[in-house]
Amino acid sequence: MPNKDLKCGLYVDHSRDLSSAIQNATNSGFNFVATNLIHPRSNEFTPHSDLLLSSADWNSLVVGMITDCDLKGKALESSAKMEAEITYAVHLGLPALLFQCPSSVEGISQLSRLINSKITSLGGFQNLPQFWIQIPIHSPVESSEVWRNDSDDNNHMEDTWFRWQRIRSHMAVDRRVAIALELNGDLPDETSLSRWAGEPVKAVVISTSIFQTNRKEYPVLTKTHQIFIRNLITKMSNDIHFIIKGHNRHTDMRHYIQYLEHIRNTQLPHDQVANFAKGYEDFLQIPLQPLMDNLESCTYEVFEKDPIKYEQYGKAINEALNDLVTDEEIVIMVVGAGRGPLVEASINASQNVRKRVHIFAVEKNPNAVVTLQTLREQRWGGDNGTEFAKIDVIACDMRDWEAPKKADIVISELLGSFADNELSPECLDGVWSYVKETAISIPLSYTSYLAPIQSQRLYCEASQLKERDKPSYGVFETGYVVYMRNFYAIDAPKPLFTFTHDNLTLKPSQRDNSRFKSLEFVAKVDTVCHGFAGYFEATLYKDITLSTVPSSHTTGMFSWFPIYFPIHSPVLIRADETLKVDFWRLTNRRQIWYEWLISHPIPSTIHNPNGRTYSIGLL
Amino acid sequence: MPNKDLKCGLYVDHSRDLSSAIQNATNSGFNFVATNLIHPRSNEFTPHSDLLLSSADWNSLVVGMITDCDLKGKALESSAKMEAEITYAVHLGLPALLFQCPSSVEGISQLSRLINSKITSLGGFQNLPQFWIQIPIHSPVESSEVWRNDSDDNNHMEDTWFRWQRIRSHMAVDRRVAIALELNGDLPDETSLSRWAGEPVKAVVISTSIFQTNRKEYPVLTKTHQIFIRNLITKMSNDIHFIIKGHNRHTDMRHYIQYLEHIRNTQLPHDQVANFAKGYEDFLQIPLQPLMDNLESCTYEVFEKDPIKYEQYGKAINEALNDLVTDEEIVIMVVGAGRGPLVEASINASQNVRKRVHIFAVEKNPNAVVTLQTLREQRWGGDNGTEFAKIDVIACDMRDWEAPKKADIVISELLGSFADNELSPECLDGVWSYVKETAISIPLSYTSYLAPIQSQRLYCEASQLKERDKPSYGVFETGYVVYMRNFYAIDAPKPLFTFTHDNLTLKPSQRDNSRFKSLEFVAKVDTVCHGFAGYFEATLYKDITLSTVPSSHTTGMFSWFPIYFPIHSPVLIRADETLKVDFWRLTNRRQIWYEWLISHPIPSTIHNPNGRTYSIGLL
Repeated sequence: MPNKDLKCGLYVDHSRDLSSAIQNATNSGFNFVATNLIHPRSNEFTPHSDLLLSSADWNSLVVGMITDCDLKGKALESSAKMEAEITYAVHLGLPALLFQCPSSVEGISQLSRLINSKITSLGGFQNLPQFWIQIPIHSPVESSEVWRNDSDDNNHMEDTWFRWQRIRSHMAVDRRVAIALELNGDLPDETSLSRWAGEPVKAVVISTSIFQTNRKEYPVLTKTHQIFIRNLITKMSNDIHFIIKGHNRHTDMRHYIQYLEHIRNTQLPHDQVANFAKGYEDFLQIPLQPLMDNLESCTYEVFEKDPIKYEQYGKAINEALNDLVTDEEIVIMVVGAGRGPLVEASINASQNVRKRVHIFAVEKNPNAVVTLQTLREQRWGGDNGTEFAKIDVIACDMRDWEAPKKADIVISELLGSFADNELSPECLDGVWSYVKETAISIPLSYTSYLAPIQSQRLYCEASQLKERDKPSYGVFETGYVVYMRNFYAIDAPKPLFTFTHDNLTLKPSQRDNSRFKSLEFVAKVDTVCHGFAGYFEATLYKDITLSTVPSSHTTGMFSWFPIYFPIHSPVLIRADETLKVDFWRLTNRRQIWYEWLISHPIPSTIHNPNGRTYSIGLL
Repeated sequence: MPNKDLKCGLYVDHSRDLSSAIQNATNSGFNFVATNLIHPRSNEFTPHSDLLLSSADWNSLVVGMITDCDLKGKALESSAKMEAEITYAVHLGLPALLFQCPSSVEGISQLSRLINSKITSLGGFQNLPQFWIQIPIHSPVESSEVWRNDSDDNNHMEDTWFRWQRIRSHMAVDRRVAIALELNGDLPDETSLSRWAGEPVKAVVISTSIFQTNRKEYPVLTKTHQIFIRNLITKMSNDIHFIIKGHNRHTDMRHYIQYLEHIRNTQLPHDQVANFAKGYEDFLQIPLQPLMDNLESCTYEVFEKDPIKYEQYGKAINEALNDLVTDEEIVIMVVGAGRGPLVEASINASQNVRKRVHIFAVEKNPNAVVTLQTLREQRWGGDNGTEFAKIDVIACDMRDWEAPKKADIVISELLGSFADNELSPECLDGVWSYVKETAISIPLSYTSYLAPIQSQRLYCEASQLKERDKPSYGVFETGYVVYMRNFYAIDAPKPLFTFTHDNLTLKPSQRDNSRFKSLEFVAKVDTVCHGFAGYFEATLYKDITLSTVPSSHTTGMFSWFPIYFPIHSPVLIRADETLKVDFWRLTNRRQIWYEWLISHPIPSTIHNPNGRTYSIGLL
């Protein structure tokens, strides 16, 4: 069933009878029109009267095209005319303005200044339209000429992505400034295409002339176009507009819309994770601090619903119990038992392998302890236990507990999006006094992964979190948990820090949980790094793993979104150039924190010194 | 007569008997010693006891050398040892710590993190020592090998300036982090040398082995060394330390100090401007806003003392009066007469050329009007006037005055450090109603000049002006008037905006005082741009000019210091690379302001949009 949400607009020439033009477009199924507010060849500023449409119609049916966007070499008076057009569009309450991006450095610099002046001065003005910069995906020059690798910026601009790169570098970071990407008949190579996935593409402009005609006389696009458009819709989480321009070259304008709807509806079926994450795309969340703060019931409930994670834990416990050769009762400690899913998994495993176990469910959150005690009474046989398992609930921080017995197996689920960032290492260090020398930890080990990303969206989201009374660098030196969509991965993730729990009896003083590593990545195409995506891989037991690393992601598991580490200033990286990043995990008695810097191609400032903005408390 | 202020220290090996070591050094004329706090080959942390010296002595006589500054490839534990040394030095209250700069990228990254952590966490701690990073002016590798132009950072590091460039890029901007420059026997080429003038060189380390011996058996340095040291002392405004290291290779250690004193004392004689500016070196001042604010008496007094400026004005008025062919009384209007120096100059000129003039002294500042009226009574003959001049004092804004006569000559001194930045154009536009068509303006025209500069010092000074409740970008988008010393001019100044007053009768509505210009500069050597220095050149009349542009500076004139326009983020520019800057002068009814951006090699943000931080009020 076609989804009605596709937002499709029609380019119409400036017309005195705007109402009819809109009527015609909506009759053909379009949601809005894009049109010039003043006559392009008129020297006078005589725009449409605001009485022509109701405010609601201006606000939903008309995207305003700005007449003459290239101020290169023109007197500053020309910018006054453009300013008047913008101001008038704000007056009308239009939802978006469309600017043809100039192709010269100077033209871009002038346009950037003008738009920046608007977004800066109208900062708090709610009704400010979006500013869509129309950029061809391919420059005609680039198609016909060989790339000239000299230092002239205007040549670089043939890669049209650099026009956008230049504009956004000049302007304040603002989510109202976005791209209207104009498709040509030819598309650049796949690597160049994929880079747009990291940009805020709010509109795609398609000329009717690039449509081909299929055997049934319907308009269609090439396979490459289809794939690109479909990918873009996914990456923009459906928040994207299409604008059709040019004459009708087929039987009905409606067919263009239907074809785009068809492309959209044949998207790859959303996986479980995407369904779970719906509405959370590119939404930044501050990571949990389960050691300092107690989780809420609904948080536990969400995580307990993960169909895959506890299945993996169950397998791991099964295997571990199988491998343990002993006639005695096996002591299992579930440290950080929460509302009991791992206790449940342990009980099931004991049943499966038919071995007697004594499970201690250690939990510091008094609210979760209530749940555990209820479960013990109602489902786990109370003092009698189940057939093979006896369960005790211990209301205590695992680091302070004095246990009556020593453990054979220690089971925990203390991992954060970046593996060790919820202090799993420090917590498990605390069990040394009540484990046997042979004790097994599930998980056995875990490794964080890091990948550089281009994402104007995420950088912008972080930027908008600035608060008046806090230093502005703060928002760029915090890790954010986020379901990332609108991003481009500059290179594949690489392993960063590994923690292995193969000797649980070591005292905390014998361990060093600080880490340092330098990673190198290589860009495939000229790109901008906006920070890093963090993932993890964990080995629960033997070959049973959990992974959020895209290439090895545990299918269907949704308990963890990636983490995003921004950087203070985006860094331009040329194709084949190396990006080097240094990452520290540092600790003192009160907290752990990360610091990071880029050392190549340009040395950056050190982020988060002393954990001044982002740290994870131990107390 | 030798100036006693030269601060000269001696490297001494770690010694248990620190007091004697200091005694020996001071006996030889040294002001302090630089020494290791712990024994370099000891694995244990057993520093000097703090009871060895009084606090005052620790604080003035000892620079602490940190033992092992290269943490490359070492466990994070090693950094704990270095941290302990730093903390102990802070405990002792040492004035400065000396760190040997590692030569590898990783070593620098580790050291930067450690120092940055200290300056960030001890932000408000008054007693924090200076952190001197010792860097050889020349790397041994660079001397012996041909420069390899590949992308490996470690090769770039052979140009030792890049080590410093890397360190400061990683760290917070802080004036406590500085350079101890170690001289070798060979010095790099002059261009590379001159770049250090833009860095905070707080110490120069000189080995006795690079001294030569003259015919009288005294130690001397080569001519190149002499010139470099002398230049450095000037650029650092005498705030620099020397540290002698190595064995005595001449008759007396004292001779090294005496030789350095000799170099210092044979500095080029300070010109009048330098004398006038003493104590104001690299001190940022907010530009005057004489249109909005009234100047104070002492400000007038300082400017009136300029020996050259009014001489030039006098010559210009003389020539203009000479050129005027008329039998009638010549009407001179001094607009913005202040406390009367230009009135005085006009009276003198009328006397010189023996022509009758009627002078109107127009001044809006009521306090200055009092002075003018006093002068009129006491020195200018009251209602009778002088032999050739009749003077009227008009208490009025020149833009609002309704004059009884029309002027032949309009004389003003409304120029700021950046020519038009105190609104001279707007003020002179206001005289249109009371000038003859042939009226002459003195000055006739003026042009602002701009040059990119490298100056960690000025950038740092701007940075330290950040206020808690204001956006941090603000300090980097204001023009500052400053007597610049500690800077390196990346390229020569180029003309920016010109205003010509050759048709005074044009109405303000017929003029456009907004301007735009793009300038290109070329770097001679790898460098970092920290912003721009602004100067001006003005033509008073015919060939009589005023200039603050270094290459044509009007000798002895001290009325204007240059202006410094910072940028948000310093920009690395490679040798022979072009730096492009776009500059706007923008106006509305309330104010004028500048906006600026860098468009090459890397596009920067737009500075000061809408004059949000820095504007000059018209009302």
